[in-house]
Amino acid sequence: MTLIDGIPADVVSANDRGLLYGDGVFRTLKRAEGVSLYWARQYRKLVADCAALHLSCPAAAVLEADLERLPRDCVAKIIVTRGLAARGYAVLPDALPTRIVTSSPLPLYPRSHYTMGVKVHLCGLRLASQPRLAGIKHLNRLENVLARMEWDDPAIAEGLLLDAAGDVIEGTMSNVFCYRAGVLHTPDLSCCGVAGVQRERMLEFAAESGMAVRVGKLPLDRLMEAEEIMLCNSVIGVWPVREFNGRVWDKGGVAVRLRQLMEDRDD
Amino acid sequence: MTLIDGIPADVVSANDRGLLYGDGVFRTLKRAEGVSLYWARQYRKLVADCAALHLSCPAAAVLEADLERLPRDCVAKIIVTRGLAARGYAVLPDALPTRIVTSSPLPLYPRSHYTMGVKVHLCGLRLASQPRLAGIKHLNRLENVLARMEWDDPAIAEGLLLDAAGDVIEGTMSNVFCYRAGVLHTPDLSCCGVAGVQRERMLEFAAESGMAVRVGKLPLDRLMEAEEIMLCNSVIGVWPVREFNGRVWDKGGVAVRLRQLMEDRDD
Repeated sequence: MTLIDGIPADVVSANDRGLLYGDGVFRTLKRAEGVSLYWARQYRKLVADCAALHLSCPAAAVLEADLERLPRDCVAKIIVTRGLAARGYAVLPDALPTRIVTSSPLPLYPRSHYTMGVKVHLCGLRLASQPRLAGIKHLNRLENVLARMEWDDPAIAEGLLLDAAGDVIEGTMSNVFCYRAGVLHTPDLSCCGVAGVQRERMLEFAAESGMAVRVGKLPLDRLMEAEEIMLCNSVIGVWPVREFNGRVWDKGGVAVRLRQLMEDRDD
Repeated sequence: MTLIDGIPADVVSANDRGLLYGDGVFRTLKRAEGVSLYWARQYRKLVADCAALHLSCPAAAVLEADLERLPRDCVAKIIVTRGLAARGYAVLPDALPTRIVTSSPLPLYPRSHYTMGVKVHLCGLRLASQPRLAGIKHLNRLENVLARMEWDDPAIAEGLLLDAAGDVIEGTMSNVFCYRAGVLHTPDLSCCGVAGVQRERMLEFAAESGMAVRVGKLPLDRLMEAEEIMLCNSVIGVWPVREFNGRVWDKGGVAVRLRQLMEDRDD
């Protein structure tokens, strides 16, 4: 099911700035039993991302009405683009955004991804530093596409990306956390990466549960010394990392605890 | 006139990777009296850009047939995307590229842009360094969009962009050259920027005409000391810069000579 500006359709104008320039933002979220999970946060993030690109964001009620028309259990994707273009990069003052709301089936990940953990590839591609776009889930995703092309072994569930300095930033489709000496670490995303809603929840709920959390630089060798590594996003939830960059982790107590914490809350 | 995979239409699938991820490349070229200018070069560049992103490039004859159906005098745009997506960044092995060939009217630039030169804004946005994407005319153009938003004064014809180190890279829609002490300089684009076909022609023809040319780092203060600054792309041709960053240039002999050189050749 796809709705373009609220109307069932599966095509957009070939002159949409989303296509021409990747001029737009998106959200991926899970619908379960008719509920769009963590919707208040998802919408807050959409508003913030639109504001960062000076895009006008559809009203919450409009998007909620669209989401209600999707299957009760699915992955929902919301795209907001800057709408139609004249020739050239300049924005027409009267441009109306295009909103695309679409569903796809919930992916079936192996249970072992949650219990045993996943195998992760270290990507060769390094993320560029662009503070003006960092954190935003925008439609310029060629770095993710190129990074994802680096492996086709189905046993590998994700790839981790570093920045040019060699610091760990994120997965191609997830945020990364690690646990060491009583502290939960996740990379600072002020120069590159996407700051996901699940990352925000993890930081918030872990802190509320009394865990020490730290957002900052995360050099690769620091990650390799972690007692546990975890990946998260709004669809997968939390996956422990079992194998990465030549090391195997078999302990997963913190990941289990965090996953429980995330599943127990609906906000 | 817009052709999608050779068929007159003005919409593309909402599931096209060009829209979802900016996963594609494009070319903008001028058609004059039924001729697609510098087509051999334009096609070579399209092939190279597709190869850099592991995209399959349509055959020259297929694109030529599309171009022939556009107006005899127009701006033609060719977009090649990676086609339809499954959910996620991974590329389907059997994905067929989408090709979009579209026309827009030739823009009417004031004659004074060529004779007197143009006023240029110094952009505050700094281009990110990404060697894997540098030089390629891909669909991830949010930096250009944000840079173009920095001014709305119609007297300003273009904005110049620096990289994070403060070196001059390009205009939002053009490449930049400067002339000083007998040498024509243009920035190295191995870390950011788009290496346009008109830039390639300028480098080649200037060298053939006996001018010393140099591709390398171009710090802003070096640009400010230039005797002349020029902008070029396949639609505008060559514009001298008259006003930029607080300085005015009124000499334009080299720009006139180069423009003549570019117009005299049809390759």
